[in-house]
Amino acid sequence: MEETLKIYGVNAVMEALKANKSIDRVYIQNNTRSTTISELEKLIRLHQISASYVPVQKLNKLSANHQGVIAYVSPITFYSLEDMVAEATISGKTPLFLLLDELTDVRNFGAIIRTAECTGVSGIIIQKKGGAPVNSDTVKTSAGAIFKVPICKVDHIKDAVYYLQGSGIKTIAATEKTDKNLYDISFTEPCAIIMGSEGKGINPSVLKIVDEKARLPLMGDIGSLNVSVACGAFLYEVVRQRL
Amino acid sequence: MEETLKIYGVNAVMEALKANKSIDRVYIQNNTRSTTISELEKLIRLHQISASYVPVQKLNKLSANHQGVIAYVSPITFYSLEDMVAEATISGKTPLFLLLDELTDVRNFGAIIRTAECTGVSGIIIQKKGGAPVNSDTVKTSAGAIFKVPICKVDHIKDAVYYLQGSGIKTIAATEKTDKNLYDISFTEPCAIIMGSEGKGINPSVLKIVDEKARLPLMGDIGSLNVSVACGAFLYEVVRQRL
Repeated sequence: MEETLKIYGVNAVMEALKANKSIDRVYIQNNTRSTTISELEKLIRLHQISASYVPVQKLNKLSANHQGVIAYVSPITFYSLEDMVAEATISGKTPLFLLLDELTDVRNFGAIIRTAECTGVSGIIIQKKGGAPVNSDTVKTSAGAIFKVPICKVDHIKDAVYYLQGSGIKTIAATEKTDKNLYDISFTEPCAIIMGSEGKGINPSVLKIVDEKARLPLMGDIGSLNVSVACGAFLYEVVRQRL
Repeated sequence: MEETLKIYGVNAVMEALKANKSIDRVYIQNNTRSTTISELEKLIRLHQISASYVPVQKLNKLSANHQGVIAYVSPITFYSLEDMVAEATISGKTPLFLLLDELTDVRNFGAIIRTAECTGVSGIIIQKKGGAPVNSDTVKTSAGAIFKVPICKVDHIKDAVYYLQGSGIKTIAATEKTDKNLYDISFTEPCAIIMGSEGKGINPSVLKIVDEKARLPLMGDIGSLNVSVACGAFLYEVVRQRL
């Protein structure tokens, strides 16, 4: 397994951003002010990259020679939403997308990518900010599936929902806030399933605009499943209906 | 969350064993020979408890005052297989059992217990040796479901399969070593699903005696799912058929 690539130093990181490298996250030393840092911050905003301001001790731990800035390069190249949808549409298979709304646990994220690969998902859509990182842990817990399933980052899941709807794809939220269970939903047409985060579920503004809401029946008292298990149950219901 | 209870000292551990306390695992200091230790070892064999021989440094880390022996008490009381099957049979619901054949990852084990609670599983059967421990991590990752689903420990999964078959319960192995997929199996009668370990799958001697083998269809190249995800897909297929 390759380690995630790190880039050090403000100029190197700026060049990587300008060259449209898939930067996953940038760490900047606290309380550092300079023209180049301001320039870097502009680029970070422009490319909507996650940035964290951290004490110098944290940077020292990550690298001996950081010059106040470290960026993590993603192990994969991300698709654009437009390309992902276009490719799925001409693939000859019925498109099936998976949207993850700020899912934060790397192990759940990896397991979901692995399940997506096994169930023929056309592509996974995540948000640029607020979700689990795409790093070497994700690669490991996905059992390498991350190199097989197209992944795309969007500014907001809501925008992706609108775009998918405009492309004739039915959007279905996996949520307990409905009486309809997933077995009453048809997944045979092109569709997209939205899974929420471990703690908060799906953002209310996303829930408002989806075409369908579906729940997994719960027969016990606990009232909620692990998100990667729930996602697997949804994706396998799609597989069953499409077989 | 309560920490798992520890018992220290050879006499205390022997008394706990004689009182039939649910001991999960015993640690004994390496190269300690005495009549009481031999007596303890006899009791451990009699109760078929997992025991490990460890350096004194490991015991020192676990407790300041161990006298060469530490036992972990399980946070739950285990059912006998006979009681579990009898209770499920008179419950009025169609029995559904889950057998875990030496599953080793605590997080997978916890997620599976949680899913079992959500899908109305009557009881979970594990092996006395070779599987993930029942400890405070299991409690945590099960989201407390471990206190709601009966769990039973058997000497060998094979014995449990024979006993279930003798009780009129259909046994179904989740395995890739079959052409039959799970959607072609009927789960509406009393049944038991067997899941294998992360690395090795189900023991061949168990596979030989089950009533049915069923696979999840895999549409990609990866060829295997996370075991807790696979287990969820099986259990939700049971739920769907029984609704």
